[in-house]
Amino acid sequence: MNILIIGDICGRPGRQAAAHYIPLLRQEYQTDLIIANGENSAGGVGITAPVMDELLNAGVDVITSGNHIWDKKEILDFIDKAPRLVRPANYPPGTPGFGYTVLTKQQVKIAVVNLAGRAFMPPIDCPFREADKILTAIAAQADIIIVDFHAETTSEKMALAWYLDGRVSCLVGTHTHIQTADERILPNGTAYITDLGMVGPWDSVLGVDKDLVINKFLTGLPAKFHLADGRNVFCAVIVKIDEATGKATAITRIKRYLN
Amino acid sequence: MNILIIGDICGRPGRQAAAHYIPLLRQEYQTDLIIANGENSAGGVGITAPVMDELLNAGVDVITSGNHIWDKKEILDFIDKAPRLVRPANYPPGTPGFGYTVLTKQQVKIAVVNLAGRAFMPPIDCPFREADKILTAIAAQADIIIVDFHAETTSEKMALAWYLDGRVSCLVGTHTHIQTADERILPNGTAYITDLGMVGPWDSVLGVDKDLVINKFLTGLPAKFHLADGRNVFCAVIVKIDEATGKATAITRIKRYLN
Amino acid sequence: MNILIIGDICGRPGRQAAAHYIPLLRQEYQTDLIIANGENSAGGVGITAPVMDELLNAGVDVITSGNHIWDKKEILDFIDKAPRLVRPANYPPGTPGFGYTVLTKQQVKIAVVNLAGRAFMPPIDCPFREADKILTAIAAQADIIIVDFHAETTSEKMALAWYLDGRVSCLVGTHTHIQTADERILPNGTAYITDLGMVGPWDSVLGVDKDLVINKFLTGLPAKFHLADGRNVFCAVIVKIDEATGKATAITRIKRYLN
Amino acid sequence: MNILIIGDICGRPGRQAAAHYIPLLRQEYQTDLIIANGENSAGGVGITAPVMDELLNAGVDVITSGNHIWDKKEILDFIDKAPRLVRPANYPPGTPGFGYTVLTKQQVKIAVVNLAGRAFMPPIDCPFREADKILTAIAAQADIIIVDFHAETTSEKMALAWYLDGRVSCLVGTHTHIQTADERILPNGTAYITDLGMVGPWDSVLGVDKDLVINKFLTGLPAKFHLADGRNVFCAVIVKIDEATGKATAITRIKRYLN
Ligand SMILES: [Fe+2]
Ligand SMILES: [Fe+2]
Ligand SMILES: [Fe+2]
Ligand SMILES: [Fe+2]
Ligand SMILES: [Fe+2]
Ligand SMILES: [Fe+2]
Ligand SMILES: [Fe+2]
Ligand SMILES: [Fe+2]
Repeated sequence: MNILIIGDICGRPGRQAAAHYIPLLRQEYQTDLIIANGENSAGGVGITAPVMDELLNAGVDVITSGNHIWDKKEILDFIDKAPRLVRPANYPPGTPGFGYTVLTKQQVKIAVVNLAGRAFMPPIDCPFREADKILTAIAAQADIIIVDFHAETTSEKMALAWYLDGRVSCLVGTHTHIQTADERILPNGTAYITDLGMVGPWDSVLGVDKDLVINKFLTGLPAKFHLADGRNVFCAVIVKIDEATGKATAITRIKRYLN
Repeated sequence: MNILIIGDICGRPGRQAAAHYIPLLRQEYQTDLIIANGENSAGGVGITAPVMDELLNAGVDVITSGNHIWDKKEILDFIDKAPRLVRPANYPPGTPGFGYTVLTKQQVKIAVVNLAGRAFMPPIDCPFREADKILTAIAAQADIIIVDFHAETTSEKMALAWYLDGRVSCLVGTHTHIQTADERILPNGTAYITDLGMVGPWDSVLGVDKDLVINKFLTGLPAKFHLADGRNVFCAVIVKIDEATGKATAITRIKRYLN
Repeated sequence: MNILIIGDICGRPGRQAAAHYIPLLRQEYQTDLIIANGENSAGGVGITAPVMDELLNAGVDVITSGNHIWDKKEILDFIDKAPRLVRPANYPPGTPGFGYTVLTKQQVKIAVVNLAGRAFMPPIDCPFREADKILTAIAAQADIIIVDFHAETTSEKMALAWYLDGRVSCLVGTHTHIQTADERILPNGTAYITDLGMVGPWDSVLGVDKDLVINKFLTGLPAKFHLADGRNVFCAVIVKIDEATGKATAITRIKRYLN
Repeated sequence: MNILIIGDICGRPGRQAAAHYIPLLRQEYQTDLIIANGENSAGGVGITAPVMDELLNAGVDVITSGNHIWDKKEILDFIDKAPRLVRPANYPPGTPGFGYTVLTKQQVKIAVVNLAGRAFMPPIDCPFREADKILTAIAAQADIIIVDFHAETTSEKMALAWYLDGRVSCLVGTHTHIQTADERILPNGTAYITDLGMVGPWDSVLGVDKDLVINKFLTGLPAKFHLADGRNVFCAVIVKIDEATGKATAITRIKRYLN
């Protein structure tokens, strides 16, 4: 089974690049499932119901997210009714929304789990222990398990991947918006990449107009950010998983551009 | 002119991998200058005089560094006499050591500048303004300027690269120990990569034994870290620079393994 | 000379408490100068021109501030024309506004300097070195020097106070909104308190409605804060300074309530 | 019932000041129970078995702690056998040691609970939810509940106090080493102070030699800290609790000096 996993989609330009490449890659790689991180998909921060629908209509099966998922207030109106949108599972008990979802494709049951890191990020529950809990809960239900670990530091991402090696089919990192070149299959069969990278304006700082960000670093003054113009980058991976064993057999990094 | 720039070298395994690949790459790419980040070169944190000499003897022309440069106390005994070892230039006035160095290769004057970030890092002087100051100081002395920006976040690295685009030949990021896949030439001629990656144990967390790091995340208790065993990764870039203009014309990412 | 220095004034309730106690304390302690921190004086974050005028009309001679000074956008319209409002002097070169001000009372020249900390706060220039620069600049102009050091940690505040002991008449801390009980005269004549405390709603978390803050800690979700209701606290110190020597001779902590 | 609660005891000078004042205050206030924070009691960071015994022999009934409790490695040898020493209860499951203890004095059952904050501190479990769990567990066993909340920010401390108001007899903050002037009885009967302050060298930065700390702020270089010389401060509170209701009726701040 081939799964396309797409990094943080940034606003309208990111959604357009995603809509452009999803059908092409689906055909090129004969993908069976498409996952995308949507925490920045509405205007650069957060997600709205129409934007979620736009991504689902573009072919995304499951939308993962991260710390920015709460930034558009209307999220609280629909997240509890949106089982194909997941938010980090290690937010505290009582947090609206779902931390993971299980769906069936070609009679294979696939769980998609979202977790967030704590190093240099707001305090939440332990992602390592939350992963243990979820794996216990879904062991019987899922043939394949995909984790989007939304975290800042390379060490927390790499550590969780080793911790889950052989227990999940794939762990991808998101949040830094820069694709890493370390995709690999860990010894016990978990496909891994530290960060998928983003989908959005390429001549930018993480999607944002570069002059605004430079000015922020130079002055320290509050600033209103908006996305940059110009051509876009589309960052993702294709993971090949043996559905009989749940082990990954290949991970391919994808990076395309769109004017 | 071809310049080989090598990421954070981790301890003895990293030094061995560097010693193995430096002559091979020098020949393969006909390199004229070799730069390596040595902040972790002695046992995983810091650098000593014998380790510095070992790196220089292996063919490194300039050693850059970062936040860990101070971790071996003996650094203060020799850093002021070590012009080929640079530490972040934006440490405060009075800090021992050199923030940049200028050397001549094939009658071309090359400045190597080290800077450190401030996002999620200890407070120091502004790297953007320090860069401006240094560029003013060395404008007349240098045909080519290479910057190693040792920083945690992708945004601070990308922002400084855009800020210096066209004013330096190349800016490489270090510190996260994971190579990024975004090497490029910016519009005004600066070669860029968000992080070079490291040289050291591959089945590890940033070079360190993975079980120790996992345990640290699980327990929060203090832990003594040591480097991992096993095969090593060697991460670097080759940058091709037109010495007439000081502009980069190509950047090639290098990732090799050594058992 | 007696100087009244008032902690962070929080919104309308804080301004009302300040307006109530300023005339009473001026008479009770025969004060010659009144300083107040206004970073939260407009609705809880930031300051506007009408709010600044309200504080000045209430008898405040100099308004100091801190990290929240930029939170109301209109600040940029008037801060360059507001010499009696100071913002941290160690913001980078080019920052709008004034980092210190010098005024004359009873033929005594008094400098009021604002600085901000860096521990657990956004990266700015070194407050220790900025203090050195300002003291050099104003040595000839000022008989008395008062510093408001707006910082998070007790260690950075205490360290700067020792660093400046004998070089300034008084250093008060602000930002934590909780008054400390450590007011003292340091050995070389500098009056010191780690934090003045705030002026605003007492049954609150730092002025803010407590249920909102508790909920923020419990859920981690974004929240809109507003100030709490009910009685107010008024926190300040009275510092007695010998204008002949510039040394402090007494510091008295003030804490009053207003229904 | 009168309870003496003493702030972070710093090294030998702190232990000497504690040994001096404990008998005096026990008699002066007719105290029934003595609690002290010992996270810095051995040489400034951590605690050893002999130091623990010294504190217990000096009259301390329960030793609370905080983030520094792990700094002397030998702690792991004895913490599981030391029921009168508590460490923050919201460290993750499996952490050595006890998070709370229950003891009986004059037939009154008293629980002493230790919790740690997360704002600007290492990631651990939620202190608010951990408090809920412990209160449920000990509801039947304890007439009086005392909480030492070891945390950096005034907001997290004040928020937890409001959250527990009426459910615990007293919540004191520790960790900043500077006593605050906000001791009070909250509306539902919980005695509160944001920080007890420390017991240790008064002409210092949080107990440490001030020149070392100033130098650390000026240079950013690693530094070995040692405690300061000279007279000591002894910071504590006396809390009067009605054992029939478990409610506090008075809280008195104590600050004494010893040459
Ligand atoms: Fe993102
Ligand atoms: Fe994110
Ligand atoms: Fe490194
Ligand atoms: Fe580093
Ligand atoms: Fe404030
Ligand atoms: Fe503030
Ligand atoms: Fe402490
Ligand atoms: Fe502490």
